[in-house]
Amino acid sequence: MKIDIGNALQAVATPGVSRAGLKRLDERVAEAHARIEQGRKESEHGYETLNLPSTVDTNAIYNAIEPFEGSEAIINVGIGGSALGAATISNALDSDVDAYYIDNVDPEWVRRLLEDINLETAAVNVVSKSGTTAETLSNFLVIQQAMKDAGVNWTDRTWVTTGEKGNLRDLADRGDLPLLKIPDGVPGRFSVLSTVGLAAAALQGHDIDAIVEGAAAAEADLAPSLFESPAYAYGAVAYALDARGAGINVMMPYTESLETFAEWYAQLSGESLGKDDLGQTPVRALGATDQHSQLQLYRAGPHDKMVTLVQATDREDLDIPKTNLDGLAYLGGASLGELIHAEFAATEASLAAAGVPNVRIEMEQVDEHAVGELLYSMEVATILAGELYEIDTFVQPAVEWGKKAARGLLGGGDFKEAEAVAEKTTLTIE
Amino acid sequence: MKIDIGNALQAVATPGVSRAGLKRLDERVAEAHARIEQGRKESEHGYETLNLPSTVDTNAIYNAIEPFEGSEAIINVGIGGSALGAATISNALDSDVDAYYIDNVDPEWVRRLLEDINLETAAVNVVSKSGTTAETLSNFLVIQQAMKDAGVNWTDRTWVTTGEKGNLRDLADRGDLPLLKIPDGVPGRFSVLSTVGLAAAALQGHDIDAIVEGAAAAEADLAPSLFESPAYAYGAVAYALDARGAGINVMMPYTESLETFAEWYAQLSGESLGKDDLGQTPVRALGATDQHSQLQLYRAGPHDKMVTLVQATDREDLDIPKTNLDGLAYLGGASLGELIHAEFAATEASLAAAGVPNVRIEMEQVDEHAVGELLYSMEVATILAGELYEIDTFVQPAVEWGKKAARGLLGGGDFKEAEAVAEKTTLTIE
Repeated sequence: MKIDIGNALQAVATPGVSRAGLKRLDERVAEAHARIEQGRKESEHGYETLNLPSTVDTNAIYNAIEPFEGSEAIINVGIGGSALGAATISNALDSDVDAYYIDNVDPEWVRRLLEDINLETAAVNVVSKSGTTAETLSNFLVIQQAMKDAGVNWTDRTWVTTGEKGNLRDLADRGDLPLLKIPDGVPGRFSVLSTVGLAAAALQGHDIDAIVEGAAAAEADLAPSLFESPAYAYGAVAYALDARGAGINVMMPYTESLETFAEWYAQLSGESLGKDDLGQTPVRALGATDQHSQLQLYRAGPHDKMVTLVQATDREDLDIPKTNLDGLAYLGGASLGELIHAEFAATEASLAAAGVPNVRIEMEQVDEHAVGELLYSMEVATILAGELYEIDTFVQPAVEWGKKAARGLLGGGDFKEAEAVAEKTTLTIE
Repeated sequence: MKIDIGNALQAVATPGVSRAGLKRLDERVAEAHARIEQGRKESEHGYETLNLPSTVDTNAIYNAIEPFEGSEAIINVGIGGSALGAATISNALDSDVDAYYIDNVDPEWVRRLLEDINLETAAVNVVSKSGTTAETLSNFLVIQQAMKDAGVNWTDRTWVTTGEKGNLRDLADRGDLPLLKIPDGVPGRFSVLSTVGLAAAALQGHDIDAIVEGAAAAEADLAPSLFESPAYAYGAVAYALDARGAGINVMMPYTESLETFAEWYAQLSGESLGKDDLGQTPVRALGATDQHSQLQLYRAGPHDKMVTLVQATDREDLDIPKTNLDGLAYLGGASLGELIHAEFAATEASLAAAGVPNVRIEMEQVDEHAVGELLYSMEVATILAGELYEIDTFVQPAVEWGKKAARGLLGGGDFKEAEAVAEKTTLTIE
């Protein structure tokens, strides 16, 4: 994996960062690197994430899913960090085993999904670190009932991924279900390279050791300078551009299979860095499609954004048949791969020509190794940025208010937050 | 449909708009309304969109798709405005006919999609107003070849949706293919209520007259005051909040089936208003899922955003089975619908409690009528905002640069833009 930050320089873009500014920032990167290494060494909460390439036990994962080998589908019941990492890998890599991520409590959607899936040949993975996530437990209860109704022995088709204690662990103990442990020091949004993200991948037939090796390759690149580590380069440049006015970071892979990666990055960045009135707003986009949707805004709208373009340079291709349609001869004889690469290069240049800062993330193929390297690198970038912002990257205090309010509204206890709901200011037009 | 802008008021949110400010803005809304009505009366480019409820010929659409009745799938080949409107309706409404939107030129993705679709029972709709869109024509050539390879007579399975003249019209004439005309005065991103958006819906078995009636209901609500028209209220408040610092507009439906709607709105807003250094950046989100991903940022990050919460109040529900798991008794006996409604109310209140401006869009069900009303209302809101920004809502000049560069790179002519690609500033870390 390599990163090209040339189009984020002040000579190209506004906002942009000068080469001298990068050199000054690099001193802080060295300090942050030391802090990160210390956190890793002492297995501090959050920093522990970056040790996963050597601490994750892939054999335990293979053993846990072994009873489910031959399943035609996997149903992952989890939300947020308990869904997005695994879904990112599922969508990045092709498999004959379908994967469904039940990560919402929309009743019509859940019902239709369950009608579409053959529950007899599906495996269910229930994922919640605390074991109390309302959406996940509710969906699991619904699925458990659907399996009973279909005459399927749910205890034969279910495994549990959870933390040290809690409801789900009790459930697993009572039903003698296979259990995968979520490591303590790894927050949900950083858990893709643990049991949380890798079990579904293993059941889908992917080489999870190769994913971990890719992560280890990125780990080996860590060094006390942004000029030596692609992951640090990305985190530092995003931080520097934000400080100079690019409060929005558009993540735009030119690969359909990485669309969920952009979604995953949005959680990683948003939930880690969005605090103390700080943090870029991540925006998911998709090349080449969004050239026909968002590019007008990116080029000609406010100068408040950077665009991250992700490219895989060496993928399978598909020829475009020749045509005698007027003015389109230039397409026939080319390939879809050549077309999308030309569009990538054209969009990158067109952003630069409009002075919009952009960064290129480049890999060869979207395979296990590359995915592991990419995910680990973005985690490093986010942790580095957290150090530079001087915030606590690994907490998410602002979501507690709404959880209490929802629980109160459902009769799950007395919470003053629930009372605020009734006091809403209204100005309704109909 | 109704809109509640109470949580966008200065008394609740920062940025927020005062009631007095809204009254002053309402004078400009009245002027803009007069301008819009004049444009509609004179069938001006763009404004013509708002006449579609009375000008669209649904019989012509039903006639064009009649030869394809009984198809098991529809393949829509188009990009941007030639895909997103139809896809929004397809995803909003349930159907036994599958719909595939080939709106990217990713070779692996296109190949896999074509492997998964039974081409013998699929209908193909090729959509490009100009008839020259490189991605669309390339994909169509690939699909045409795939049909030939599969022994399917592609001329029996294809119809064309295009403008007054051009390649696709020639193709339709030569092959005697059914042809649907894209009305001249309607830009692609505003074309959902025309032949472009409604043909796939008709083939999927939806009542497109009911969609048009829903749009007509929103049309009937237009009045020279934001306090009388929900659509104007939305456009005016988004504009006012942007002017006060909310440069980001998060569109967050609490309905999986409206996820593509948020995507459609992102194009509508981004491409229409993103010019002259103006325009909000639309961000797609999804409730309740993104409470576990983005809510931390929305509540505790920079005060540069508004959140639009979309709710359908009266949908099918699904009971949550009772449970004896510790601390979760409050869930058993409730329903997924009650849970997601509680989370909606809790999130709305939690944003207000954090001073983050938010707007509620409320409908009863996600049916044909409601979808028509919603889409038309968002078009009105966007056109109104364009008037308030004093920009040309209906053009997209900034995308031309990249199109020329890509064409030049593919050998489709001499363009100086293609030369700029080779001159890229690089600073690579690997």
